[in-house]
Order: sequence, then C-alpha cells, then structure tokens
Amino acid sequence: MNGLILHEYPASGNCYKVRLTAAHLGLALERRSYDILKGETRTPEFLAEVNSNGRIPVLQDGDRFLPESNAACFYLADGSSLIPQDRYDRADLLHWMFWEQYNHEPNVATLRFWLRFVGLDALSEAQRLQFRPKHEAGRAALDLMDRHLEARDWLAANRFSIADICLFAYTHVADEADFDLAEFPGIVRWMERIASMPGHVSLDD
Amino acid sequence: MNGLILHEYPASGNCYKVRLTAAHLGLALERRSYDILKGETRTPEFLAEVNSNGRIPVLQDGDRFLPESNAACFYLADGSSLIPQDRYDRADLLHWMFWEQYNHEPNVATLRFWLRFVGLDALSEAQRLQFRPKHEAGRAALDLMDRHLEARDWLAANRFSIADICLFAYTHVADEADFDLAEFPGIVRWMERIASMPGHVSLDD
Repeated sequence: MNGLILHEYPASGNCYKVRLTAAHLGLALERRSYDILKGETRTPEFLAEVNSNGRIPVLQDGDRFLPESNAACFYLADGSSLIPQDRYDRADLLHWMFWEQYNHEPNVATLRFWLRFVGLDALSEAQRLQFRPKHEAGRAALDLMDRHLEARDWLAANRFSIADICLFAYTHVADEADFDLAEFPGIVRWMERIASMPGHVSLDD
Repeated sequence: MNGLILHEYPASGNCYKVRLTAAHLGLALERRSYDILKGETRTPEFLAEVNSNGRIPVLQDGDRFLPESNAACFYLADGSSLIPQDRYDRADLLHWMFWEQYNHEPNVATLRFWLRFVGLDALSEAQRLQFRPKHEAGRAALDLMDRHLEARDWLAANRFSIADICLFAYTHVADEADFDLAEFPGIVRWMERIASMPGHVSLDD
C-alpha cells in the first residue's frame, strides 16, 4: 500500500473509522473532502471516478477504489494485530461489523445525521415517522453492546480490534443522536479504554 | 468445524446464503427451524442461548454461536477458493458484502418480507411511507449491480466467491419484492451462471 487517499466527509463516523484504523497502524492518509450536504458525492465525476454508489468514505490505493467503511478498515488492518488470525475470532469480528452496518449505523448514525446536520424541521414525513422506531432500535443496539461489554474489555477475540474501532465511531457521538450514554456503563468504560489507547485520534483531529 | 447447526427460518434469503455456501464447500449442516412470524426468535430461551439480537440465521459450531449471515458465510468459507487470498480482493469481496447489508437487503429483502410474508394490508403507516423510497433504493441497488456485471462474470476478484452467494440470495427472488429482473440483463446472466454451478442448491431445497 502506498499513496493512500481517503475520500471523505470529515464529520462522518464512517470516515472516522478509516482514519482511526490508519492512526493505530501508523499509516498516512491523504484526505480529500466532499460536502455531502451539497451533493458533492453525487456529481457525475464522483460517480464515474470514485464510487458509483455516491457515498463516502472511499479508500483509494493507487488506481483502486474501495468503498464501504468497514471493508476499508479491513483492508488497512489485514495482517495486523487489529484482525485476529483465528478463524472463529475473525468471523466473530466480522459479525460485529456486519451488525454495526445493519442494527447500529442505520439507527444511531442516521438519527445523528438528521438531528445535527439536516435538522428536525427539514425532515420528510416518512423520516419523522421513522424517528421513534429508529430511536428504539438504536437504544436496543446500545443495550445489546452494553450487556456484551459488561464482563468484557473488547467486543471480539478478547482484544482491541477493528470491531471496536468500527463500533466506537458512532457510539461515542450517540449523544448527538439523542441517546444518553450514561445509561450504558459497560459502553462508557469501553469508550474510555479506546480513547486512552496509544495512537488514538479523535473525530475532530 | 464439526457438528455445524444452522438456526434458521428456511424461506429467509439470509439463511439461504449460509446453506448455499455450505453446499459449495460440501459441509453438512443440521437445520433447526424457527417461525419468525410467530416470534420464535424473540423468546427468552432464544435470546439467552442462541442470539441476544433475536435474529436468524445463527451458525452454531460446537458451543459457539455466530450471528450475521455474511459473517457465517465467511467463517465457513475461510481458507477456501470462495474467499480470495489477495488483500485487495478480499477487502473488495467484503465491500460487496457490507454493501449488501446496507444498500440491498434493507430494501429488496424488506420489501419481499412485507409483500410475501406480512401483507400490504398489515403494514404500519411508517412502513407504508417507506415502501416507495425502499423500492427506489432497491432499484438503484439492482441497477448498480447490473452495471457492474455488464462486463464481468462475478462481483469481486474475477471469480465466484461468497460475495456472489450473499448477493444472489435476495437478488434472485427480487420479483417477490415487486422488481422486474428482466430490466437487468447483466444480473440475469450472472444469476444463470450461479444457478448452473456444480454444487448449487435452491432456496427451496
């Protein structure tokens, strides 16, 4: 890998995952910003050259473009201590990362986006009706994590991994999505462990 | 791996992915059925013993339980030709599998579930308002796949992989979600290639 470029919207938790993974691995990333609120990832150029799905992050390595935040983290960390070698542990790490994209991100990250970036008044009727179900589903996701972390330091394989990085990204800003993290002491302790790791960078770095 | 048990709802595409992966690998799976329409995956026993997230499929190997369909496929296929060894190819395969869970399944699979299993009349107001946006997003997902497959035989790494298996599961029943697959000739040819592979099993097998 060389000349890594991250196509991103800096405030996105999905983009932060890739930066945090790179930071722990000591890898340099050139950052290219797109304003998703201005549709800069839906231009014909972006769709043709960066990601036909019109989304960030996209990790570029030379002339290859890799969309999907969790796949980009896996690419960067493959072969490192951030991904276990044991077959079950590796699949269990992926279980948490798929769960993140299905049960956590569409609720916690979407509500954060609606509240912080779109604004309640600008939501469509369909979005307004989804607000409460998404909040309930997000709370259930945080509760599941919290119970899992009650007696464990890390999500998978008894070690810090990209599963922790990928879940940390939106969990640690869940207050911006109207969740009270103080209700989840297992999560709070886990977040403190992550934030105190050598190599940690914050979302705003 | 031995004594593999698949906790499943047989008509679920997510469960079919795991069966199809196992079939290509020649692995035997004991199948245990739960009726999700009767809440059989939300009982205290299921939540405590099988999956605290209350969902199927869960792949059991001995005393270990692995939720998330795509993680279960990765577990079964790890080390086989269904997962490329090259670092970029492997990440690109995961990119399609994460994309499936975020952009394809919540639209195509959810609409199929609503239409075939729940029934239009039984949808909530919030679900009714999501019907059209989900149909548009599902169509966009199928269109993206179709354009990708226009000049390629397989989704990733120039070979048949678990990315193809995981995307095939709900794509090949997209007509049950009110999509017209005849509009997507690249997908139709790809589905024919998959269905004619040695070792293929159908959703109803």
